[in-house]
Amino acid sequence: MKKNDIVLKPVAYVANDRKEIKDDNWGEVHSTIQLAEGMAEEMLDGIDAFSHLEVIFYFDKVPQEKIVLKSAHPRGNPDYPKVGILAQRKKSRPNLLGLTVVEFVERKGDCLVVKGLDAIDGTPILDIKPVMREFLPQSEVRQPEWATDLMRNYW
Amino acid sequence: MKKNDIVLKPVAYVANDRKEIKDDNWGEVHSTIQLAEGMAEEMLDGIDAFSHLEVIFYFDKVPQEKIVLKSAHPRGNPDYPKVGILAQRKKSRPNLLGLTVVEFVERKGDCLVVKGLDAIDGTPILDIKPVMREFLPQSEVRQPEWATDLMRNYW
Repeated sequence: MKKNDIVLKPVAYVANDRKEIKDDNWGEVHSTIQLAEGMAEEMLDGIDAFSHLEVIFYFDKVPQEKIVLKSAHPRGNPDYPKVGILAQRKKSRPNLLGLTVVEFVERKGDCLVVKGLDAIDGTPILDIKPVMREFLPQSEVRQPEWATDLMRNYW
Repeated sequence: MKKNDIVLKPVAYVANDRKEIKDDNWGEVHSTIQLAEGMAEEMLDGIDAFSHLEVIFYFDKVPQEKIVLKSAHPRGNPDYPKVGILAQRKKSRPNLLGLTVVEFVERKGDCLVVKGLDAIDGTPILDIKPVMREFLPQSEVRQPEWATDLMRNYW
């Protein structure tokens, strides 16, 4: 532990049939998010009034030595430009945080069922927030071509 | 430190003229995000190709004893229903993570200028990701009336 270190605890865990790390085809994956031990079921009350949720999770399977601290070709593809790690969504990144908007499907007690969470079975979740329209981009979204190409088979 | 604890380090810090915690009127706030000491400037290369960024930050000014672990009326307003902490975006939440889509304005070396970051001066940032259209909600966003009302003067 050093000064400025921030210590977090999983609030929940992912359960799904994705046991291996894979880049593509996440769109139809249904996941169950189960609250961690000691977390009150009441934390989820009212969540069913929202259609989408933002899930912040931790890529716990990425070895520390794989973390990119400068820049890299996205997916190691030399056809894509070399861009800084904070200009891409690659998982091997400082702090190993993942972030995805998912569709809410169902709540059952201390579990949520969601669609489109790109995290494998067992992944620790650090936060869940409801998507509000006012928190979406309020002006046109612009992105480079490599990003559009990379995302082609993601969902 | 306990088993399952996750230790993160700030990758950057916020600088702006919001020195006090306030709920509303964030829309016109411009912030500078400066990389933390030891972080390579190259991490930001190519980020200017994106119009919007997602910023994950840490509400370091919230005292641990204020964290809501169950449910509460959003903003303490009894006119709003009591909802679970994971069904609202209140800052006094487990793990104290904030998350906002901001407009990219400019990059200067190891700094980014952004618009609409709802974090006060000095806030530690844990991650920055480019917004890609494919990561936005792909179906209609539904939210309860209290959320729309609460957001009325936020930006």
